[in-house]
Amino acid sequence: MKGQAALAIHGGASAIRKLDYRRECSHLQALVERARDDLSRGATALDVATAVVSEMEASGLYVAGKGGSPNLAGDYELDAGLMDGKTRRGGAVAALQGFQSPIQVARLVMETTPHVLLVGEGAAAFARTCRAPEIDGDDWFTHAAGEEANYAPGAQLRGTVGCAVLDRHGNLAAATSSAGVFDKMPGRVGDSPLIGAGVWADDRVAISCTGQGELFILTASAAQIAFLVRSGRDLRTAAEAVLSEIRSRGGEGGLVAVDHEGNVEMPYNAEGMKRAALTRDGEIRIAVFDECVRS
Amino acid sequence: MKGQAALAIHGGASAIRKLDYRRECSHLQALVERARDDLSRGATALDVATAVVSEMEASGLYVAGKGGSPNLAGDYELDAGLMDGKTRRGGAVAALQGFQSPIQVARLVMETTPHVLLVGEGAAAFARTCRAPEIDGDDWFTHAAGEEANYAPGAQLRGTVGCAVLDRHGNLAAATSSAGVFDKMPGRVGDSPLIGAGVWADDRVAISCTGQGELFILTASAAQIAFLVRSGRDLRTAAEAVLSEIRSRGGEGGLVAVDHEGNVEMPYNAEGMKRAALTRDGEIRIAVFDECVRS
Repeated sequence: MKGQAALAIHGGASAIRKLDYRRECSHLQALVERARDDLSRGATALDVATAVVSEMEASGLYVAGKGGSPNLAGDYELDAGLMDGKTRRGGAVAALQGFQSPIQVARLVMETTPHVLLVGEGAAAFARTCRAPEIDGDDWFTHAAGEEANYAPGAQLRGTVGCAVLDRHGNLAAATSSAGVFDKMPGRVGDSPLIGAGVWADDRVAISCTGQGELFILTASAAQIAFLVRSGRDLRTAAEAVLSEIRSRGGEGGLVAVDHEGNVEMPYNAEGMKRAALTRDGEIRIAVFDECVRS
Repeated sequence: MKGQAALAIHGGASAIRKLDYRRECSHLQALVERARDDLSRGATALDVATAVVSEMEASGLYVAGKGGSPNLAGDYELDAGLMDGKTRRGGAVAALQGFQSPIQVARLVMETTPHVLLVGEGAAAFARTCRAPEIDGDDWFTHAAGEEANYAPGAQLRGTVGCAVLDRHGNLAAATSSAGVFDKMPGRVGDSPLIGAGVWADDRVAISCTGQGELFILTASAAQIAFLVRSGRDLRTAAEAVLSEIRSRGGEGGLVAVDHEGNVEMPYNAEGMKRAALTRDGEIRIAVFDECVRS
């Protein structure tokens, strides 16, 4: 007999109350329903995590893929990473220019190279070799969440999407994709594509982070949650401990995580985080701020 | 009254018995003696880690900086990262082309930008802005350790240098620099510049790793050692646990680590690892294989 699947999705911990997120909530609802159906038919955690993040990239609704914003030089450099808890393998790209779906290229890095992380020109050359879909000029980008950028200068606003999944076979996977902070320097890489920082999956837990990427790197956030879970903490305690460390250093962000028992956690310490979950009981939850929008 | 300083240095876990490492051992001896003198005069762990790795890059004796080897496209892409345990800040560059000292650029990323990691063209543009010393043509490189590349094809040979330091003020720092594996794909980034993978420092421990970088990323090696130490393990147990995980996945490598009490560990599971240490008792040790060359 197969176990129950569960998953959690985020669309970035940068939501602000004065904006209307009905489109994003509808989109998240549709995404979770499709993922639920795929999982019930036996789809793997890795395939579902990749598909969910691909669709978020393609939607233009979040600061990843088509929704990306340019860096200080006016270029669109995108990051994405994923990890398969079953095999403990991973793939990632950073500062990738010219391709529609960084997460799909990250998956190809994992599956077709001996490497984990390709960056910059080398990542683009690899994506071309793979015939990954290219971008038809910078007009393609929608600059999602530009209205969220109303913080003080230097606040390092950012957007990210991510997904953590437990499939019916008991395997976990996570994927994260981002265009990084607004006004980032050329070549800047945040935590999103970095395994152990913004993404992680093993046999106990899958995690995707969002927020001030530099702090998530400097606390090895995703890996730290995994170690806490491995050393016996429950998922909520582990996730809160890491977010508390981010907070104590003046940082802001959030994360989604699913463990091997199907527990789902989606903590954040920002004003809002676009998020959605399928619980192991089959319940779907959509939220942006504290209250649940739909369930 | 000030405490005792300690440090550990590695020049890569790729040494093979049929080669002669007397030059490297003499160089390591001189490096440790200078670092010991600097530390006794009150130099900070961060300054000493940066200086040691800079000198190793400049020596052309190891597969980092001047000793670097080209990637599959014939380009020299270098990686380096450092972390200051006192401030818990870090800086890194990856796939950097055209500059002599990646670790010095990494330090500038930490000290002069809001970011932690810059890669590719963006990293080079930043280095130019900083007027970091450039490379005068590819003839500058010495291709150190080319003779070590006698493994089977696909063995993913590699070279790295690194340093972990405890200063007399009780602060820790670590730095790692690498040209990566031989025959790496363009844009490939290994564990060396990634905080939590190939480099880490906090208030309890400083770590620099070397070996099959992909596996060190996928086990979040340096962060894992730090978490194990934080949860009460002694340094040796923590370091051995992580190296044992690398080994169990068919990987090869090593690491150097120093904790806040001045304990030094330099485990490896390869044929040899060029390494040197200053213990808290003031003893200097130089070794390549199991036996100590000088002490």
